[in-house]
Amino acid sequence: MSNNPAMNRRVVLAERPKGAATLGSFRLETVAPPQPAPGEVLVRTLWLSLDPYMRGRMNDAPSYAPPVELGGVMTAQTVSRVEASQSPEFRVGDLVLAPSGWQDLAACPAKTLTRLPKIEHPSWALGVLGMTGLTAYVGLLDIGKAAAGETVAVAAATGAVGSIVGQIAKIKGCRVVGIAGGPEKCRWAVQELGFDACIDHRAPSFKDSLAAACPKGIDVYFENVGGAILRAVVPLLNTHARIPVCGLIAYYGGAPRTADGGAAPPDPDWVPLLMRTMLVKRMTMQGFIIFEHDDRHPEFFAAMQGWLSEGRIKYREDVVQGLENAPQAFLGLLEGRNFGKLVVRVADVD
Amino acid sequence: MSNNPAMNRRVVLAERPKGAATLGSFRLETVAPPQPAPGEVLVRTLWLSLDPYMRGRMNDAPSYAPPVELGGVMTAQTVSRVEASQSPEFRVGDLVLAPSGWQDLAACPAKTLTRLPKIEHPSWALGVLGMTGLTAYVGLLDIGKAAAGETVAVAAATGAVGSIVGQIAKIKGCRVVGIAGGPEKCRWAVQELGFDACIDHRAPSFKDSLAAACPKGIDVYFENVGGAILRAVVPLLNTHARIPVCGLIAYYGGAPRTADGGAAPPDPDWVPLLMRTMLVKRMTMQGFIIFEHDDRHPEFFAAMQGWLSEGRIKYREDVVQGLENAPQAFLGLLEGRNFGKLVVRVADVD
Repeated sequence: MSNNPAMNRRVVLAERPKGAATLGSFRLETVAPPQPAPGEVLVRTLWLSLDPYMRGRMNDAPSYAPPVELGGVMTAQTVSRVEASQSPEFRVGDLVLAPSGWQDLAACPAKTLTRLPKIEHPSWALGVLGMTGLTAYVGLLDIGKAAAGETVAVAAATGAVGSIVGQIAKIKGCRVVGIAGGPEKCRWAVQELGFDACIDHRAPSFKDSLAAACPKGIDVYFENVGGAILRAVVPLLNTHARIPVCGLIAYYGGAPRTADGGAAPPDPDWVPLLMRTMLVKRMTMQGFIIFEHDDRHPEFFAAMQGWLSEGRIKYREDVVQGLENAPQAFLGLLEGRNFGKLVVRVADVD
Repeated sequence: MSNNPAMNRRVVLAERPKGAATLGSFRLETVAPPQPAPGEVLVRTLWLSLDPYMRGRMNDAPSYAPPVELGGVMTAQTVSRVEASQSPEFRVGDLVLAPSGWQDLAACPAKTLTRLPKIEHPSWALGVLGMTGLTAYVGLLDIGKAAAGETVAVAAATGAVGSIVGQIAKIKGCRVVGIAGGPEKCRWAVQELGFDACIDHRAPSFKDSLAAACPKGIDVYFENVGGAILRAVVPLLNTHARIPVCGLIAYYGGAPRTADGGAAPPDPDWVPLLMRTMLVKRMTMQGFIIFEHDDRHPEFFAAMQGWLSEGRIKYREDVVQGLENAPQAFLGLLEGRNFGKLVVRVADVD
């Protein structure tokens, strides 16, 4: 679909998924562009962030944010450029962070926009220098309380958040054991990101390999996944271990599936094991969402800019071209097919 | 069995239970009394505390304390009287807290003993003024962070810890909803302890009644039980809810049983629900054992003495006569047959 700049393309929620989301869950529409009302700003999406939490917004169930309405534009954070302004706070050409969703054009209240500082890679404001990086920073340090000499295990280790979690943990003097899907990702985590080990959760030897990589147990488990990975981690947790719960991608698609996509047999209840481990090991588990930790942004931003400029944090983006490819890319993200922070290049201008 | 004061009766672990403990798990022996070595003190048990955590010590599995050895004396805290002293720190006749176990006489290193202040009811040092009360205080206030206006739900609400948890929560201005087994206990919690409600978990309407008693949801769930009670609580938990995990008596007896003691069908796995609730509600769950919180004893002790003297905390003991009845009483405790803090009167002297 070609992009007529006078029109607005948008991806809306066509139907609520039962279990796994599919392409049929989305619909691409072309409509007249919105007109900004007084106090509003018309923005054009340059970069669109795709993140696992969006799967939760597709359900009509209580969560930490209201669901996307049927027929409504899928929510997302974007890096956008101001096209027209009915607010004295923004001018045409300004680069902003906007909660403008999966679409070309949006009219946003000025107070929902954040002007972006001059940074080399504007899309990084959606990742390592934005919500993704802050999630890693707050989850690992504030909630996980990772300390030098401890062992940190991180699930989805080459994902947007996990890759930053592991690198911050290395900077802080921890032993870092990643968990990722497939040998290529694991190799990258060790060779490029400097993790001490990275274990392939698709390998038959996963549990044994994970145990072998954690000879002193696990002090902090940064939870992005749940499911079989959590099950393998729990027996390795040390006394006073902490589990920041950032995401649970294994549970986002409805019924559990096997590695090759088939229906998994129902697991027996292992809440008793989980709870007994919580008690016997005097562990702390805490769920968090980053929207409640904005106050930590200034400290995080200064630290992360320093680490990036010193080359101590490496950042990889998985760039998809074109808004029309966002649904397919998002489905791949839920299955772990991305490699690095997933962003969509929506408009070819900066 | 009569009690020859020159001999030592002791209850030892006869065999490790597979699943539920039974009378056959224990053996009562009569042996020659121990002789205190230099630096040791010979103590005679007056009161013996029976607590659910002892079930864990009967297993040969990693836990926060070493297991009782096969043939070894069951561990317990006691209120004892010094019979002979090889330490300058203690004199004959002193009343002490001792880790002396299920027996009449023990030779204890002086440093393991705590001299008791003059209190009206020495056995209360095993309960409301001791480990039990401190557990309630630390779990509710330090870990649960209960605040005025919040709803606190407490499992095993008429048990040793739960009854104090609920009363402290009332003093702190919380709405308190107890969960207990049977109408008599529930009535006592409301009428005598002043809980706002107490729900019978054996009643068929348990889940609905619990929800109705928590119209504003649950902010703190003080976990003593696990199992079906936790399952009923989870859907009611509020954003930022806290779960101090103090005990899990539902899981101490091996495979789950139904209310009438039969084998329960295996539950489907609900770890996904539990974990998703942790995330979506940004909850905190923390296991603790009171032995790591001794530093909180002075503040607790002063507060609790005040509340008791003002009549703001009521305390009920379930007193069993005779060491030989300790095993049966302990089995009853695991099944919720006690009513109040369970202690054994071992010697009829003070």
